[in-house]
Amino acid sequence: MTNTTGKMFTITTFGSSHGKALGAVVDGCPANLEIEVEDIQKELNKRKPGTSEITSPREEKDRVEILSGIFNGKTDGTPITGIVFNEDNRSKDYESLKNKPRPGHGDYTWTSKYENYDYRGGGRGSGRVTIGHVIGGAIAKKLLSKFNIKIISHVTQVGDIKAKKVNINFIEEYSSSNPVRCADPDAAIAMEELIMKYKEKGDSIGGKVETIAIGVPVGLGDPIFGKLDGELAKALMEIGSVKGVEIGMGFDVVGSTASTINDEFYMKNENKKVDEMQPNSDYIGTTTNTSGGILGGISDGMPIVTKIAVKPTPSISSVQNTVDLEKYENTKINIEGRHDPCICPRITTVSESAIAIVIADHMLRSGFIPLSNLEKTV
Amino acid sequence: MTNTTGKMFTITTFGSSHGKALGAVVDGCPANLEIEVEDIQKELNKRKPGTSEITSPREEKDRVEILSGIFNGKTDGTPITGIVFNEDNRSKDYESLKNKPRPGHGDYTWTSKYENYDYRGGGRGSGRVTIGHVIGGAIAKKLLSKFNIKIISHVTQVGDIKAKKVNINFIEEYSSSNPVRCADPDAAIAMEELIMKYKEKGDSIGGKVETIAIGVPVGLGDPIFGKLDGELAKALMEIGSVKGVEIGMGFDVVGSTASTINDEFYMKNENKKVDEMQPNSDYIGTTTNTSGGILGGISDGMPIVTKIAVKPTPSISSVQNTVDLEKYENTKINIEGRHDPCICPRITTVSESAIAIVIADHMLRSGFIPLSNLEKTV
Amino acid sequence: MTNTTGKMFTITTFGSSHGKALGAVVDGCPANLEIEVEDIQKELNKRKPGTSEITSPREEKDRVEILSGIFNGKTDGTPITGIVFNEDNRSKDYESLKNKPRPGHGDYTWTSKYENYDYRGGGRGSGRVTIGHVIGGAIAKKLLSKFNIKIISHVTQVGDIKAKKVNINFIEEYSSSNPVRCADPDAAIAMEELIMKYKEKGDSIGGKVETIAIGVPVGLGDPIFGKLDGELAKALMEIGSVKGVEIGMGFDVVGSTASTINDEFYMKNENKKVDEMQPNSDYIGTTTNTSGGILGGISDGMPIVTKIAVKPTPSISSVQNTVDLEKYENTKINIEGRHDPCICPRITTVSESAIAIVIADHMLRSGFIPLSNLEKTV
Amino acid sequence: MTNTTGKMFTITTFGSSHGKALGAVVDGCPANLEIEVEDIQKELNKRKPGTSEITSPREEKDRVEILSGIFNGKTDGTPITGIVFNEDNRSKDYESLKNKPRPGHGDYTWTSKYENYDYRGGGRGSGRVTIGHVIGGAIAKKLLSKFNIKIISHVTQVGDIKAKKVNINFIEEYSSSNPVRCADPDAAIAMEELIMKYKEKGDSIGGKVETIAIGVPVGLGDPIFGKLDGELAKALMEIGSVKGVEIGMGFDVVGSTASTINDEFYMKNENKKVDEMQPNSDYIGTTTNTSGGILGGISDGMPIVTKIAVKPTPSISSVQNTVDLEKYENTKINIEGRHDPCICPRITTVSESAIAIVIADHMLRSGFIPLSNLEKTV
Repeated sequence: MTNTTGKMFTITTFGSSHGKALGAVVDGCPANLEIEVEDIQKELNKRKPGTSEITSPREEKDRVEILSGIFNGKTDGTPITGIVFNEDNRSKDYESLKNKPRPGHGDYTWTSKYENYDYRGGGRGSGRVTIGHVIGGAIAKKLLSKFNIKIISHVTQVGDIKAKKVNINFIEEYSSSNPVRCADPDAAIAMEELIMKYKEKGDSIGGKVETIAIGVPVGLGDPIFGKLDGELAKALMEIGSVKGVEIGMGFDVVGSTASTINDEFYMKNENKKVDEMQPNSDYIGTTTNTSGGILGGISDGMPIVTKIAVKPTPSISSVQNTVDLEKYENTKINIEGRHDPCICPRITTVSESAIAIVIADHMLRSGFIPLSNLEKTV
Repeated sequence: MTNTTGKMFTITTFGSSHGKALGAVVDGCPANLEIEVEDIQKELNKRKPGTSEITSPREEKDRVEILSGIFNGKTDGTPITGIVFNEDNRSKDYESLKNKPRPGHGDYTWTSKYENYDYRGGGRGSGRVTIGHVIGGAIAKKLLSKFNIKIISHVTQVGDIKAKKVNINFIEEYSSSNPVRCADPDAAIAMEELIMKYKEKGDSIGGKVETIAIGVPVGLGDPIFGKLDGELAKALMEIGSVKGVEIGMGFDVVGSTASTINDEFYMKNENKKVDEMQPNSDYIGTTTNTSGGILGGISDGMPIVTKIAVKPTPSISSVQNTVDLEKYENTKINIEGRHDPCICPRITTVSESAIAIVIADHMLRSGFIPLSNLEKTV
Repeated sequence: MTNTTGKMFTITTFGSSHGKALGAVVDGCPANLEIEVEDIQKELNKRKPGTSEITSPREEKDRVEILSGIFNGKTDGTPITGIVFNEDNRSKDYESLKNKPRPGHGDYTWTSKYENYDYRGGGRGSGRVTIGHVIGGAIAKKLLSKFNIKIISHVTQVGDIKAKKVNINFIEEYSSSNPVRCADPDAAIAMEELIMKYKEKGDSIGGKVETIAIGVPVGLGDPIFGKLDGELAKALMEIGSVKGVEIGMGFDVVGSTASTINDEFYMKNENKKVDEMQPNSDYIGTTTNTSGGILGGISDGMPIVTKIAVKPTPSISSVQNTVDLEKYENTKINIEGRHDPCICPRITTVSESAIAIVIADHMLRSGFIPLSNLEKTV
Repeated sequence: MTNTTGKMFTITTFGSSHGKALGAVVDGCPANLEIEVEDIQKELNKRKPGTSEITSPREEKDRVEILSGIFNGKTDGTPITGIVFNEDNRSKDYESLKNKPRPGHGDYTWTSKYENYDYRGGGRGSGRVTIGHVIGGAIAKKLLSKFNIKIISHVTQVGDIKAKKVNINFIEEYSSSNPVRCADPDAAIAMEELIMKYKEKGDSIGGKVETIAIGVPVGLGDPIFGKLDGELAKALMEIGSVKGVEIGMGFDVVGSTASTINDEFYMKNENKKVDEMQPNSDYIGTTTNTSGGILGGISDGMPIVTKIAVKPTPSISSVQNTVDLEKYENTKINIEGRHDPCICPRITTVSESAIAIVIADHMLRSGFIPLSNLEKTV
């Protein structure tokens, strides 16, 4: 089940960059969630290419169709299948790359493992498979929204340009107002210029994306091998191009002492009577959030903060050394195709999806969302 | 199955810091692996406390006993159970902490989730549960050694002291010659001094640990949701105190361009005849290894390089603010107990275990190790 | 993952009787299996209704389309998606049954559990969902055929008419020559007459189906909780209408003694030299097969024999008592729709699929089929 | 994870007949269930040998020790480990059987698969491994008892002696009053005599065991591949010696028509007001229960009725033909050891355990029991 993820809220994805279709089967979503195709489409629109100068010019409408699982406008407890047919697949661009693995891509490892490799656009190794993630993520987000949980994502660094810290309440609005999806308007402009510079050179640049889950209650996460941070790290690292994951302070803990970074607890409402004070999250908080909302593998009620390192898209237009897997000799390639000079803006939507799927799964696993039927509290 | 990890090579762990025993059940190890209790004991000895000035003084022999799964000195295909009984558990140290969650620990979240929480020494949230990881890891390492795969781990940073890069062939020897487990001897001395400084202050300091798998063939990893890097990230993030995970260059990709970091392919043995050149790993390599041995979620034959950010142990001896979960009011605590001023040296063994378990699992899942019986190649 | 089954060879099915489409995603099939859409279509044709007087007259072409997973005529290691669009769904037939659960059907339990229940034709509780099983089963059968494993199924009893025992080598040919799929030609005629009799009455009749896997090597099955017989029993019991499962002698063991039914072992080729005698299945057999090819949960090289009890299709045209789930009162219904007076003939294909999926999964799990790539023996 | 079963309530078992110990790790039991070691011990006492003339004379105290998971007399949400050390293992009895597989046992298949086979008493293929099932089952039963669910089991047939049908309310009391565990006192006497007759002959006899779950609410079961009947069938078939499983009428449906066996629905309390009538199980029932409490894979609120066919214990004291796996030649064996002339009485406890584990798992999976903590209804 290597194309299935999740335990109670699961998604199974299928399809490839230049095949007939891509899609996802979402299983375990409780019945009676109102959902429309537009709830999914609007997320796919945020992910799709061709929306600005700084993304790949591949033109795909990425229209999703729902084949099962919705009855009378609501989920009915059966698997929800969403599907997107491929349209603008210029497969010829890739003929010259056959058997010549592109540096930094999965061509070499996929070919070695499976031999029969759909090399067109990276096949199922393409970033285009995240359409499946986004279909699943859109349904997860819709479900979470009923429980006042929101997932937001923004670009915090491109190359050496770092965004200033923005208040959590404004990140979504500010980051959606520019094509870089950076919440700091000044940095956004600088980032866009930098990306355009590398686009013109036929090169690409890395970046950093922060994704935050707001409104998560205390108690999500199943130690020892189902810790919330462990499963978030897996979901994020499984996104193509991601080479690092941080929770909370992340690597900044390395140079820190416990006396300076321990998040101390305090009563939010000390004048409340004890018997009114359930659940804990409304009454107890931490004065800082260096732990990123997770302690001992379990959410602590603070915002869950994750950051990922995104490598520069490896498809570049300069000549690169590689090998010919048929002739078994050294050779060179020059990748044409259509690529993103910085994939960070589009990865924001995928990160939100990945995190929404994990959080939805844990909301079910920990009993915060009824398991079979939203209308039924047993 | 939140205390079980792995798909074909699985470990289920149990036990807590101050309960009767801790242990692991290892399932899926093929029959006919020669193994002795000493293979496991020597790994536990590397993990156990009290071995130097810079670790916790808790005195535990941590003697492991094997209860099942070994017949005539070899595995017999049935579950292997290893168990360690607790001895030096000074539970009284923790009485004063009952209902007063220690900042930075899981006390608060575990209590909120389960209510009936074994607060003595952090219960099952204690670092002591990694005894289970190490039992599983020792068996995984023994199995991998038959296939010439080796896992090594060393401390590369403590506070602001960074180790110099050491040739991969010397890391194991050099790092095992000092209590900090740092492969750079000069840095090791400085790190030890720094740790002692914080120990005296009753404070603690963070660090960074690098763990490398050498000899992994091309082809481990199951895209899309069983990618090797995804599962490594999960396994590492599930270790207590870990707040960040990197594969290969990790966060250094953020400021890089593809033209400078793409790992180019080359023929290692161009003068070999084509029909002799299988499998690929012996004949094709990359000139650099920024990707850390994984491309498209699948191993590429280069060393697999992971790094983790380890936070300072949150147990410190100064007074900290917290809440009283019974009285529902603000309060203060002063943690006594016995703690590590820097957990990095002991985490090296746990990281090796975590990675060995994932690699062993994938060696089985990808068919590189016979699934039921080492003597039988079907 | 309640709509996913299997561990290494998995199928995820979706869709309902009167929705847009039904289908399956098959994951874990190794790369380089040659497969054509006709391999799947021919199995679906055996399952589909309207092929004879004794099956439901619903007219469905049940044309399958492959959306992913096949590249250049061979599997490529990525998920294979097969889909069938619904056509002849006379949903109006079911309007009068809304909120009035049909006795013997899942209407009542599905409505109680999910509330938002697609009552048209039983929704996802319909026998039509076995299209997903058959898509998965067809791929499993194709894979198994490369390893000389064959799955055959035939009707052995309808009502009180029992078929005579037929030599295993003729079952497939004989049973495919009549619409009842009974290998005893005389019984087939009597069964057909009996079924027509109940069809005319608007009633239905039960029966028994035997399914056999031939050519399974010694060694499939993972004790204790992955025993081959346990997983076969689950797969068979999950088929709608099945109320009993037998392995080998089944319930006939109840009145038997060990001295009469123990299968004794013998050497098939005693004159062979010892060092030529691997694997065991070619050289050791049992003189009888009361155990049905499975001992201690593991296949023993003899044919694997399963039998199922199939209840009479509960949809009948006489008036039945039921309740009105909206008004909460007793009521009566008269089911119209189009139904099978005996579902056994069509269940043969579904049983073959169920068993093929389990055997394929175990062939991979036990290492008899290369896990990622048929061309690669590691 | 072939020694782990369950999804949310899971048990992992380990150990063998003549090894050091046997046991189980139970994971997923919610916190705050009061449990004492006696709750487990009393179930093990029902399973253990040597309690009457008609069971094996092996003398084992089978004292269970709890190593983890209980804190202050209640579960704490961490894995519960129960362990039984072996004592009376007369391993020498088995020396002569080494490499000579006993007909009807798993010796041959286990040896073929794993080669390094603990032949003493059947190793892990022994019925003694059901100690693990019973530890898990005892905890499941304790949990279910809080929700008024009871599991009872009795012997309904031995050889050709069939028990008369006994009212469901008296089965437990009556069946526990005789060593055969048959609820019909007259049949019990005849069964005991028959078993003693075969014991004296050194032969053994088969039988039938019925196990019933009472008080299960409407709504357990996850179609399509997590149907309640499918998972019950698997759990029962995984018990050694079981060759057939029936739900409800079982194989009697074969000769039946829908018009006679469909379970019709009726209102139990028609004079109640509609808005008081939740959940359905209190108000709607079926007039008959041929379906055995499961419709469409989901429980319907009626008692869940299962029956199993138990083969005669294959260990008999007469000479039997077999092969020598070392010399590769035909040979004969004469089994000594200590065996049950009819295993049915002891299998009742194991069946109860198997069913309790499945029902507990589904109570959690369907949200009828809080997932993490019994005290917390989210």
